[in-house]
Amino acid sequence: MEEGNDGKHGSNVIISSRIRLARNFVNYPFPPKLNDRDAEEIILKVKNAFTNYQDGEIGDVLFIDLGNIGKIDKQMLVEKHLISPDLAASTRRCAVVVSKTENLSVMINEEDHLRIQSLFNGMRIEDAWKLCNKADDILDRDMEYAFSETYGYLTCCPTNLGTGIRVSFMLHLPALVMTGYIRNILDACHKLNIMVRGIYGEHSEAIGNMFQMSNQITLGQTEEEIIESIKNTANQVVDQENILRTELYRQNSIKFEDRVYRSLGILTHARSISADESLKLISDIRLGIDMGIVKNIDINTLNDLMLLIQPGCLQKVMGEALNPAELDVRRADLIRIKLGKE
Amino acid sequence: MEEGNDGKHGSNVIISSRIRLARNFVNYPFPPKLNDRDAEEIILKVKNAFTNYQDGEIGDVLFIDLGNIGKIDKQMLVEKHLISPDLAASTRRCAVVVSKTENLSVMINEEDHLRIQSLFNGMRIEDAWKLCNKADDILDRDMEYAFSETYGYLTCCPTNLGTGIRVSFMLHLPALVMTGYIRNILDACHKLNIMVRGIYGEHSEAIGNMFQMSNQITLGQTEEEIIESIKNTANQVVDQENILRTELYRQNSIKFEDRVYRSLGILTHARSISADESLKLISDIRLGIDMGIVKNIDINTLNDLMLLIQPGCLQKVMGEALNPAELDVRRADLIRIKLGKE
Repeated sequence: MEEGNDGKHGSNVIISSRIRLARNFVNYPFPPKLNDRDAEEIILKVKNAFTNYQDGEIGDVLFIDLGNIGKIDKQMLVEKHLISPDLAASTRRCAVVVSKTENLSVMINEEDHLRIQSLFNGMRIEDAWKLCNKADDILDRDMEYAFSETYGYLTCCPTNLGTGIRVSFMLHLPALVMTGYIRNILDACHKLNIMVRGIYGEHSEAIGNMFQMSNQITLGQTEEEIIESIKNTANQVVDQENILRTELYRQNSIKFEDRVYRSLGILTHARSISADESLKLISDIRLGIDMGIVKNIDINTLNDLMLLIQPGCLQKVMGEALNPAELDVRRADLIRIKLGKE
Repeated sequence: MEEGNDGKHGSNVIISSRIRLARNFVNYPFPPKLNDRDAEEIILKVKNAFTNYQDGEIGDVLFIDLGNIGKIDKQMLVEKHLISPDLAASTRRCAVVVSKTENLSVMINEEDHLRIQSLFNGMRIEDAWKLCNKADDILDRDMEYAFSETYGYLTCCPTNLGTGIRVSFMLHLPALVMTGYIRNILDACHKLNIMVRGIYGEHSEAIGNMFQMSNQITLGQTEEEIIESIKNTANQVVDQENILRTELYRQNSIKFEDRVYRSLGILTHARSISADESLKLISDIRLGIDMGIVKNIDINTLNDLMLLIQPGCLQKVMGEALNPAELDVRRADLIRIKLGKE
């Protein structure tokens, strides 16, 4: 994914911005009822659309037939949030189009015929929205979307009906977790119909103090209103997080620094480490960088590392299939190399 | 204390070798019944003996009147094992003679009139015995020891009667602790009338897997027999420890190395650390050095550190009195400097 954050206050609290659009074509049943021939036809039409119509901002794209790649490659695509775990596990004929920058991906024959997604590091929701629209325009040209004047875009699951949009932010909220105030945030978001989940989507735990915040309502508002509303809430949470960080540091700077540096010490010295433990330690170091405590590590190095430590990416980088014990050792090795300790 | 170990197998398991002789003079009551004038007189006589008779191996000595030094200095002497906690806390007129090498100290008016002690790093019990004898000879010249043909040297507590000797080894036994076999060692030692205690003597816990092993019987055997017997037992324990280390490493070298390096990571990165936690981490690193896992840290650096992290030594080095929170911060700073991480 192309690096970037807007350099503003709180840009490191917002790890990434994402928009996803659900779309279906007329004349085909929804994927659960789709036969192989129709599924194949949809894949081909999408592929042709991206071949025939190019866009400068999307740039070159890669077409990946999910039937032609192995388990590790699929896992890596999930870890990069380019496909969903459901698509990776699907027995249906399915595929994905990925831009070379990895800021855009279009899943074909997931729950809906199309899941157009755009993901950027930092607070760049407008860029994500722009890129989704570009892809939407390309796909819209030769094919007709299932659309109702009353309901808007028709989707497989009624929760996506209308705009078919899901706007989400990945937030790093260690101070809210440390102080326990995260409970209040979760309650408030629940009342505002905003979903808050762990790093790998629904039902996943918030490992490393990473929370994904997204809209639940897709109907009765414009896309821009939905984006604006969830963006405002995210920014308020960022403010709360930053206030608490400053306060925690003011109360006991030594305890704060001690925590950050111990995590750095363990991460740069371990000889075997799980992905979950790595994420917890990275969370502390990320906090240390944001607070100006850790100065010689770049935030982009940590962003890369958060991805590289995942089993799929790690096996891909190492060029071989590894069992869990081997993964833990190679992960520790890779972390030390990336953080310049080897 | 003068550095040294014999370079033999297991020399790092034996952290230090110590001999202590209990002696009393005739014509004076035992210290608990001693009046101030007599106490003063004994101090003066001992001081004169060391002034009048010098020994090349003992070298120059320092005379320290416990009434003239502050709390931090006393604490530091205890931490260096040059005086006992009892002497530091005593309200009696008392003093200590310390050789400049710090391999010898003579406590005056502790539980007995004299406690002649010699302490060396590593397995150097013969050197300790030689030095104690040299000091014993000096003190014996102008003064008469309380001695009975039947019982040997008379001591305040009957457990020291006879030879008045206590032979002890400080052992580092992490593998015996990890595997739980330390219980068997403790049981066996109990049956052999060998006392095993923590790092700071009676009733103290075995922090950092450090155990002090010493004889309980002082009567009915010669000094040489006592030394030989406890030395043999210590060497057997060293063998057990080394067998277990090799076996643990063989079973899971990664787990072993991971433990060592994580401890190193924490110790070299913490911004606040207690003496007990430091000792636990140093224990792992010491094990790592012995096993050839950690190569760029000298064992003597760790020996120095084990002492420097103690509150008395630390305040002495820092040149000021510090509260516990300040001590933890300055300790962490000093460790990072000593281990070359700052």
